[in-house]
Amino acid sequence: MSAVVSSELYVQVQHFYARQMQALDNGRLEEHAHTFAEDGSFALTPGAEPAVGPQAILEQLRAFMKQFDGNPTQLRHHFNQVLLTPQDDGSVASTVYGLLVRTRPAEQPEIGASIVLHDVIDVTDGRIRLRSRSVGYDQLA
Amino acid sequence: MSAVVSSELYVQVQHFYARQMQALDNGRLEEHAHTFAEDGSFALTPGAEPAVGPQAILEQLRAFMKQFDGNPTQLRHHFNQVLLTPQDDGSVASTVYGLLVRTRPAEQPEIGASIVLHDVIDVTDGRIRLRSRSVGYDQLA
Amino acid sequence: MSAVVSSELYVQVQHFYARQMQALDNGRLEEHAHTFAEDGSFALTPGAEPAVGPQAILEQLRAFMKQFDGNPTQLRHHFNQVLLTPQDDGSVASTVYGLLVRTRPAEQPEIGASIVLHDVIDVTDGRIRLRSRSVGYDQLA
Repeated sequence: MSAVVSSELYVQVQHFYARQMQALDNGRLEEHAHTFAEDGSFALTPGAEPAVGPQAILEQLRAFMKQFDGNPTQLRHHFNQVLLTPQDDGSVASTVYGLLVRTRPAEQPEIGASIVLHDVIDVTDGRIRLRSRSVGYDQLA
Repeated sequence: MSAVVSSELYVQVQHFYARQMQALDNGRLEEHAHTFAEDGSFALTPGAEPAVGPQAILEQLRAFMKQFDGNPTQLRHHFNQVLLTPQDDGSVASTVYGLLVRTRPAEQPEIGASIVLHDVIDVTDGRIRLRSRSVGYDQLA
Repeated sequence: MSAVVSSELYVQVQHFYARQMQALDNGRLEEHAHTFAEDGSFALTPGAEPAVGPQAILEQLRAFMKQFDGNPTQLRHHFNQVLLTPQDDGSVASTVYGLLVRTRPAEQPEIGASIVLHDVIDVTDGRIRLRSRSVGYDQLA
């Protein structure tokens, strides 16, 4: 099989990421959780068991966000350098750089984390969803 | 109507932003001002009246840039996570993350602002221009 | 000739950069060096002679990386605002913003440099390689 993806798919994946991450950063956690497939898994925290399925992913996100209760912080996930590799089973592996930018009211923004996302993308009937995502943190390497 | 834009347009918008913001950061303010439509509006400062039309936008930019007189600072606007939504009137709404990176001579760069751009894009005869732009600052949220 | 590039090429260049820079940041220096044409040149350090050809580029990179011996640091090159301009000889000039993000173990990431890349891109039989790259550093401007 070919080792390249179409430009069409490359652009669709970029757009998918924009929608997915703006939903998360704007607090629309349910919309974000449903960018994962029904059996999709999300390994948010290194070493912990991944959450599987949109409902478990939603609960994981809500737990993660509790740290910001009483500490208003705007998160922005900037993605960059999207690298796509078709897999034999029809899915697409995606390796992406991320910068997690944090801003507190009246303060200068700071880079909270430099991350690398390892996604497996499912494309069914033109709809993109994640089969899996694991997040690597450069400061933990 | 469809809620999606073509990949062709998505790429053109990315390229438009690159051209538009490199013009601004390189001090070609007139070129930047003419990326707005004749009746295009630019709300640069929260709470202030938006400038309308390329000439007023140019004057607004010149006034804004005065703060850097005698304080050489290279600005770079990094845009990311472009999300496009077609509007009923044929325009396209665009919501984009921005990082404003500032560098002074011999100093390390810093993130001056984490922003979100809310644009309305006009595409006429294949030419992209902005009908409007308003800038939200995360530290003012 | 036309002053625009196709969306197809624009996306291919984005994908090329992702592959090229992930190779570099992951220490696959040889793969990175071979993203340059046989007579391709890379001016990494302002004022120094550019390295010419993949072998010389590889040696330049190895010398550059020596500064991190005994000082584990994860580099991530984020590219943004890709602006492409076709040249009369069939090559494509590319001007791109870069953020060099550095992370040391257990430390918060920092922006090491705000750079602008000036590339000349060769496209032969659908394969993209660099004819030349020079790197401008905002803090040296």
